[in-house]
Amino acid sequence: MYLGIDIGGTNTKLGIADGAGNLVLEASFRTTAYAGAPQFLKALDGEIHRMLTLHPGRLAGVGIGAPSANYKSGKIENAANLGWNGDLDIKAHLEASLGCTVLVTNDANLPAIGEMTYGAAQGIRNFITVSLGTGLGCGVVCNGQLVGGHHGMAGELGHALVDGNERKCGCGRKGCLETYASATGIRRTAFELLSKHNGGYSELADFSFAKITAESITQAALEGDEVAIQAFEITGEVLGKKLVDVLCLIDPEAIFLVGGLAQAGELLLAPTRTALNKHRLNHNNYDIPIKSSVIPLDRLSLLGACGLISSYNQSSAAHEKYRTI
Amino acid sequence: MYLGIDIGGTNTKLGIADGAGNLVLEASFRTTAYAGAPQFLKALDGEIHRMLTLHPGRLAGVGIGAPSANYKSGKIENAANLGWNGDLDIKAHLEASLGCTVLVTNDANLPAIGEMTYGAAQGIRNFITVSLGTGLGCGVVCNGQLVGGHHGMAGELGHALVDGNERKCGCGRKGCLETYASATGIRRTAFELLSKHNGGYSELADFSFAKITAESITQAALEGDEVAIQAFEITGEVLGKKLVDVLCLIDPEAIFLVGGLAQAGELLLAPTRTALNKHRLNHNNYDIPIKSSVIPLDRLSLLGACGLISSYNQSSAAHEKYRTI
Repeated sequence: MYLGIDIGGTNTKLGIADGAGNLVLEASFRTTAYAGAPQFLKALDGEIHRMLTLHPGRLAGVGIGAPSANYKSGKIENAANLGWNGDLDIKAHLEASLGCTVLVTNDANLPAIGEMTYGAAQGIRNFITVSLGTGLGCGVVCNGQLVGGHHGMAGELGHALVDGNERKCGCGRKGCLETYASATGIRRTAFELLSKHNGGYSELADFSFAKITAESITQAALEGDEVAIQAFEITGEVLGKKLVDVLCLIDPEAIFLVGGLAQAGELLLAPTRTALNKHRLNHNNYDIPIKSSVIPLDRLSLLGACGLISSYNQSSAAHEKYRTI
Repeated sequence: MYLGIDIGGTNTKLGIADGAGNLVLEASFRTTAYAGAPQFLKALDGEIHRMLTLHPGRLAGVGIGAPSANYKSGKIENAANLGWNGDLDIKAHLEASLGCTVLVTNDANLPAIGEMTYGAAQGIRNFITVSLGTGLGCGVVCNGQLVGGHHGMAGELGHALVDGNERKCGCGRKGCLETYASATGIRRTAFELLSKHNGGYSELADFSFAKITAESITQAALEGDEVAIQAFEITGEVLGKKLVDVLCLIDPEAIFLVGGLAQAGELLLAPTRTALNKHRLNHNNYDIPIKSSVIPLDRLSLLGACGLISSYNQSSAAHEKYRTI
C-alpha cells in the first residue's frame, strides 16, 4: 500500500491507496495551525502513525505534493504561503522515520499524475491538466512522461500572458491567464460585468461581495442568470484562446480541466472549446477533446501523490517516467 | 556511416556522416525539378547511388526530414508545397532499395535533433530550437526527448497567436507569431516602418521592394541604419514576449535561435532577451540562455537527419528517445 500526502496552503490531506488506486483511508488536518515547520512535521508524523495503526500493512512508499516542492532535492523550498521560512527537507525526515522511499513533487503536478496513473488519461501519452482553483495550475505530459522542466517550473501556464489583460496578478505582473481563468478570476469577471451593467437583473447583484464566488456564479449560471453565464463565456474565451498556443507548442491528445470551476461542466467547456476551435490552426482539423475531470480535485491530487510513488515502485520504466519531474 | 536527407520546398540536401557527426560528403539537387513523386524518387535514388560510389562503406541507416513527414507512418503526407499529390511512402521505398533502416520526421524537428546529437544542446534535457526562416519552426525537447505531439504537430510555435497582431499569415489566420518573427516577418516590419517614416534617412528606402530582405536588413542594421535596427527590436520584442509563454509551460534550460535571421546575433538576441526578462515571472530569476546556434541551419538540418538515425542505432535508450516523434 502507498501513502499519498497533499500539503496545501489551508489543509494537508493524507490517503492510503491499495495497488489498484483505491483510497482505503483518508485524513486531513490544517496546515497552518502550527508555529513552524518542526511542529507541522510532528503533527504529520502523528497523523501518519494514527492512520497506519487504523490500517496496518506494509507501506511501499510515500508520495508528497506541496507548493514549491522540488523533486530533485526532496525539499519544500521557501514555501512562504505555508507559513514557514527556509527549506523543509520532508523527504529525508519521512524516509528516516518510516524507512521507505519518499518522493516529493510540486502539487501542480498531482492532478496530471493522478489522471495518468488511475484516471481518464491512462494510456494517453500527450495531455495537459488545467487546475482551476485560486490560481491556474497545469500538469504537462509529453511522450508519456510528466514534464517538470529544467528548474522544476514547468506547468506555470497560469502566468502565461493574455494581451490586453490589465488585471494585476498575485505574482506582481499584469495580464496573467489566471487573473481570468481561475475561481478568483471568474469572480473578478463577475464584478466587472456587474459594474458595467445595471445589476438589477442579475441575481448576483443581490449578493454581498464575499458571497460572489465561483460556486455562487456557477449556481446562478445554471439557473439562467445572464451575467453569470457571460462570466463563464468570458472565462472560456480567454482560456480557449490561450490553449491554442499550447496546442501549437506540444500538440496534446486531450486537455482535462480539473478543480471546482471545472465542475461547472459545459458552462465552461463549451465557450472554451468554441474559442479553441475559432483560433486554432485551420489545417489541424482533428478533434482535441477538452473534458472536465470526473474525479474531484482533492481526490485526484491524493491519487496523484499515491501514483507518484506507486509508479516509481512498479517498474524501472515507470521510474523513468518520473525521474525528471 | 549514416545518410541524412533534408527535403525542402526548393532543394533536397544529402549528407553522409561518420559516427562522430562529421559530414564527409554532401550533395544537393532541386526538389521541384520533377514532374511527380516517382520522378523525384528516381532522382533521389540516383543521387544516393552516386554518393555511395564516391564514398563507399556500410550504410547503417538513413534519416530523412521533410515537410509533413510522419515518423509513425514513414510517409511524406500531402506535401502540397513539394508539388506532389497524395502520400509518398519514402521509408518503404528506401528500405527496399538500400536494405537498411530508414526513419523520417518533420523537417522542423531536424535542428533540435542536430543540436541534441552533435551540437550545443548535447546533455541538455530541456530546450527548444526556434528556426527563423520563411516561417518560424520550433523543435521541442523535454526530459531529453523530442516532443512530437499526438498528431506529430508539436513545435508549431510559429502559429501561436500574438494579440493585437493584425498581419495575415500563410495559414489563413491573422496574428501568428511568424508574421513577425521570421525572415519574411522582419521584411514586413521594415516595410511598415518605412511606410510610417519619411524613409529618406534609411538606406533601405533606396532599395527596391525585392531587395529588402532579412539579409539586407541585417546588413543595414550592422551599418547603424535606424529603421533596420528598429525592425530587429520589434522582431525581438514580439518573439521574446511569446517565449515567456513557452517558459511558463515547459521551463526549458536554453533556447537556440537558428536560421539566417539568427545569424544577426546580438541585433536579434538582445531585444529578444530584454523582452523575455521584462515579461517573465519575477520569481523565476534564473538566467535562461538565448543563443544563436553556431551551426548554419542547412548543416544543422543535415546533422539532424543523420542524428535521427545514428541515435536510433546506437542504443535502445536512444531508440526510446525518438520513438514517439
